[in-house]
Amino acid sequence: MRILGLDPGSRACGYGVVDDDGAPRYVECGVLTSEPAAAMEVRLGEIARALREVIDELRPDVVAIEDVFAHAQHPRSSLALAQARGMALAVVGIAGLAVASYPPALVKKAIAGGGAAKKDQIARVVQALVGLASLPRADATDALAVAIVHGRTARTPTARLVSSVRRP
Amino acid sequence: MRILGLDPGSRACGYGVVDDDGAPRYVECGVLTSEPAAAMEVRLGEIARALREVIDELRPDVVAIEDVFAHAQHPRSSLALAQARGMALAVVGIAGLAVASYPPALVKKAIAGGGAAKKDQIARVVQALVGLASLPRADATDALAVAIVHGRTARTPTARLVSSVRRP
Repeated sequence: MRILGLDPGSRACGYGVVDDDGAPRYVECGVLTSEPAAAMEVRLGEIARALREVIDELRPDVVAIEDVFAHAQHPRSSLALAQARGMALAVVGIAGLAVASYPPALVKKAIAGGGAAKKDQIARVVQALVGLASLPRADATDALAVAIVHGRTARTPTARLVSSVRRP
Repeated sequence: MRILGLDPGSRACGYGVVDDDGAPRYVECGVLTSEPAAAMEVRLGEIARALREVIDELRPDVVAIEDVFAHAQHPRSSLALAQARGMALAVVGIAGLAVASYPPALVKKAIAGGGAAKKDQIARVVQALVGLASLPRADATDALAVAIVHGRTARTPTARLVSSVRRP
């Protein structure tokens, strides 16, 4: 099973691909960026186009992505993240792929053992898990993290059941 | 100038097109829907594809859309709206169109004279403004409302200036 993990933002979208047939095997990761000074629709359009290319080229079987939550302190950044997530979901939906969604704290806990793990801690565990020589950008390791978590989760019978009822 | 107004949601996206060369002239309006029981990525993908078709067919010069705000009482519905808005912005961005964004209260005030105007009040004023025989669905009249407001705003010199610096 080839899993595409995504970490979408309005300026950049991290992606990480693993093949998982019992253990995660690294395929590729990277960060899709956009012109930071451009209008939101230009940025989201550029990232959407690049994401479509990644899907066309790497042909994942499923997409894993973190849920987005409303932050009482930063409502505007939650909305910006939700916009970016909606862009990514639309691209994935058009490609006919199903999405598995995970709470950020669950991903952190599954990877680093604690729901409050820091970004660089996540990054180093991910680096070790898939055996990367150098440390990619945090957006990319976050995307790999959710892909790895989906691989583990999808191996349990309950998760397979949940996953199979997601799409008619 | 042909203006496409959008009212994106995660279940349906209202659209309304007017030609405005001094006064709004009705072209078309409607609601792009999706399978309500389907997963979010399927719904957003279906709406994105339909929106792309509307743009390809009606060839607007510019897109007008309402801002999304964080609702303290309904943070989840704000996030769902933001996701739908991100989908719409990405489709518009890929099509190479610029987006003009308006606060919902400004649209209500401009159309119905008050920022707290009810949906059916907006709908009836829009119906009268563009001379529609029957009342379309609220999502469609909301989309027409923001298109009409953009037409009026774009006629003022300040707005033209703002609009012209949006894209390099």
